[in-house]
Amino acid sequence: MVPRAELQLLRSLRDKKHREELGLFAVEGEKIVAELLAAGHPFEKIYATGAWDGEKTHEIDASEMGRVSHFPTPSSVLAVGRIRRDTLAPGELNRGLTLALDGVQDPGNVGTLLRIADWFGLDRVLLSPMCADLHSQKVIQASMGSFARVRAVVAELGIVLAGVRAPVIGCALEGRDVHGLPPLDDAVVVIGSEGRGISDDVKGRLSYCVTIPRRGAAESLNAAVAAAIVCDNLRRAAPGR
Amino acid sequence: MVPRAELQLLRSLRDKKHREELGLFAVEGEKIVAELLAAGHPFEKIYATGAWDGEKTHEIDASEMGRVSHFPTPSSVLAVGRIRRDTLAPGELNRGLTLALDGVQDPGNVGTLLRIADWFGLDRVLLSPMCADLHSQKVIQASMGSFARVRAVVAELGIVLAGVRAPVIGCALEGRDVHGLPPLDDAVVVIGSEGRGISDDVKGRLSYCVTIPRRGAAESLNAAVAAAIVCDNLRRAAPGR
Repeated sequence: MVPRAELQLLRSLRDKKHREELGLFAVEGEKIVAELLAAGHPFEKIYATGAWDGEKTHEIDASEMGRVSHFPTPSSVLAVGRIRRDTLAPGELNRGLTLALDGVQDPGNVGTLLRIADWFGLDRVLLSPMCADLHSQKVIQASMGSFARVRAVVAELGIVLAGVRAPVIGCALEGRDVHGLPPLDDAVVVIGSEGRGISDDVKGRLSYCVTIPRRGAAESLNAAVAAAIVCDNLRRAAPGR
Repeated sequence: MVPRAELQLLRSLRDKKHREELGLFAVEGEKIVAELLAAGHPFEKIYATGAWDGEKTHEIDASEMGRVSHFPTPSSVLAVGRIRRDTLAPGELNRGLTLALDGVQDPGNVGTLLRIADWFGLDRVLLSPMCADLHSQKVIQASMGSFARVRAVVAELGIVLAGVRAPVIGCALEGRDVHGLPPLDDAVVVIGSEGRGISDDVKGRLSYCVTIPRRGAAESLNAAVAAAIVCDNLRRAAPGR
């Protein structure tokens, strides 16, 4: 039996507002919780019904799980973690590769972008405050465990990108051919929102834009797809290197 | 007023089984229907409530729309199209670029893959029968209108890929570096299912596999993201060309 007040707290973590107030987030599902544990994520508390065969700290019965779950069909495990509010070190964006998300609102896209940053071994992901919430179930689930491995910082991009010496490269429909990108060890790649692209505040911080050559008629590419292509081009070694 | 039997027919088009029996599909939503119309898709019939300001052929009232809609909050337009069962011409896969989807089951991924094929101007998309249904709302919606522009053929890949003279290239976690791909005018790129990769039937048809170099720790990339990176590498002109 989990006390009623604790169930109410768990249930309240569905909402960003309550997550922020409490400094806690919850993630549900056998696969994603197992992935995060495998990646060494330090959860505060794990609730599990008898059906879960992973690490277990607190027994919860299926009907209680039904009351706190996001899902119509609750899973057998729910893990609660503490929200870390990482901040940037001075000059950090001058070193290594950064993916900066400027108002990417679809949580599936944000999660997929974390996974891409993880695959390509980027050093960090920045999220503007307008992005989908990093600590939402959908973002964490779409990241497939990369949530636990990628350094992610929420920051006003117009402010933190000011004075960055590494090239700040926007993804846009008009720009230099992405195939002409040199291999760069230090750069910031900016991905705009699905509907409106890169915001005016951030446009002034860009060194230049790149575009992915189009041969057909689609109006645009998905934000995560575009980011992945830019990362692949950045990571591509110069011929003979 | 739409007759009751017609409402029942429209409602039945939510299910693949009924779509196949009737040879019809339905797609709802102002944005996607407008995109498909702009791309010249020949719908059989368009139903719209007063709130829709596009092309309209049949008035439907909001309560009727509520009964046929897929959505908890119905949109103002629903368009019905005829399912075309395209087949491959003899030798067709030897010419141009083909994206072959081998059991891609997530409808969002299938739609995004159609959009990628459209962006890169590929000649066609093949879908194995295990893929998400091409004529489902989610696939069409995720394609962002590319559904109307991309030639898509459902076929048993193990059969149609036999004897293809163009290189048949699998996307896999182990294979040649995708950065070493030559620019190819004729090729088939095979994308496996999200969970199980390329099926055994299709493995025997591959000329070789390519892989996207990984620098970090993510286990895999999303199927659509991987396909887009391979397409970008295929479309990349040789230096000096």
